[in-house]
Amino acid sequence: MTWTEATTSYASAVTSDRPRRRADARRSIEAILAATRDLLSKGSLPPMSAIATAAGVGRVTLYAHFASREVLIEAVVQRLMAETDHALSGLGLDADPAEVALTRLVRTSWSILDRHRTVRTVAMAELGPEALRHQHDRAFRHVETLIARGQDAGDFRIDLPRDWLVATFYAILHTAADEVDAGRLDSPAALDALITTLLSMLRPPEGRP
Amino acid sequence: MTWTEATTSYASAVTSDRPRRRADARRSIEAILAATRDLLSKGSLPPMSAIATAAGVGRVTLYAHFASREVLIEAVVQRLMAETDHALSGLGLDADPAEVALTRLVRTSWSILDRHRTVRTVAMAELGPEALRHQHDRAFRHVETLIARGQDAGDFRIDLPRDWLVATFYAILHTAADEVDAGRLDSPAALDALITTLLSMLRPPEGRP
Repeated sequence: MTWTEATTSYASAVTSDRPRRRADARRSIEAILAATRDLLSKGSLPPMSAIATAAGVGRVTLYAHFASREVLIEAVVQRLMAETDHALSGLGLDADPAEVALTRLVRTSWSILDRHRTVRTVAMAELGPEALRHQHDRAFRHVETLIARGQDAGDFRIDLPRDWLVATFYAILHTAADEVDAGRLDSPAALDALITTLLSMLRPPEGRP
Repeated sequence: MTWTEATTSYASAVTSDRPRRRADARRSIEAILAATRDLLSKGSLPPMSAIATAAGVGRVTLYAHFASREVLIEAVVQRLMAETDHALSGLGLDADPAEVALTRLVRTSWSILDRHRTVRTVAMAELGPEALRHQHDRAFRHVETLIARGQDAGDFRIDLPRDWLVATFYAILHTAADEVDAGRLDSPAALDALITTLLSMLRPPEGRP
């Protein structure tokens, strides 16, 4: 058998086997992500070997899909942000006046962020604040769209740049998570403080001295 | 010579020599901190050997005073925060109405933060956001005192916890640095946005629907 014949034969074996292998890979990836999220929810990420055990896969399989802890945490965050994006898309915010829509957006965002505060803490330490902020871009497009609509309708202020309002929105949302982490606020009080603070920041300054 | 005699003789040599050695150590420490700050102002921190060269001290001396990059960066941040504390203490904020005092406090804080944005970026990456936030405690006592006074005088809102207001103040101040770093705002626009945003957040909600 020549080298070409050998590779052709190997390739066809792989081809015929491909759907099953793809399904196996998908199952492994899902098991790894679920196990990692579960472990992260306890506040820290154990070594890769412990993640493999928890996911019921071998270390070789784990490393084949996720080359490092960083890649794995990034994938968990990416998945969470896709879920957040999906949840926010499902709110039908366009139908509500801007302040009502903002309140609903903050409630949903906070409920997801609060549930995954420990993931955020580990991701902040492992990926850094800049990379973590970048992961939020997709979810923050909902904030930007809503602020733009509120500005057009005269419900939100136009004397500050929109980018600035979006950036402070993100900062204040994540400050609430910090404050709950530090035990200075409980989760319902943090949500109230968030809504009050964000509305104060976004309302137009008319009628003010 | 017994061991005791040897140590006694060494100790008395050290004692007689102590003032000069202390002065040398102080000079080395100042040179190292100044060189590190200078290097940090260029946006990243080179290896310890390059810091020693820039400071004009040997590597042994550098490591004797600062056991690691982390310890060194912490010392630079600590020094900067002591300077900030000193600058804020010198403003005589107590004499002004709360809003005027807040505006002056923000101007001074921003001018220091903006000048040392690159130090902050490196410190954030090397020390982490929690440790960096902790380093700001002394400077943030001025913010807390001022907010408390404004609340007592009816100039600032009392419907949100004071800790929360201080925490969001910190978050918004540092968001301005992020936005200037990212090129989305220039420094004077960031200062304006800061003052407007912080006052909107702190004013009482009276007269609002």
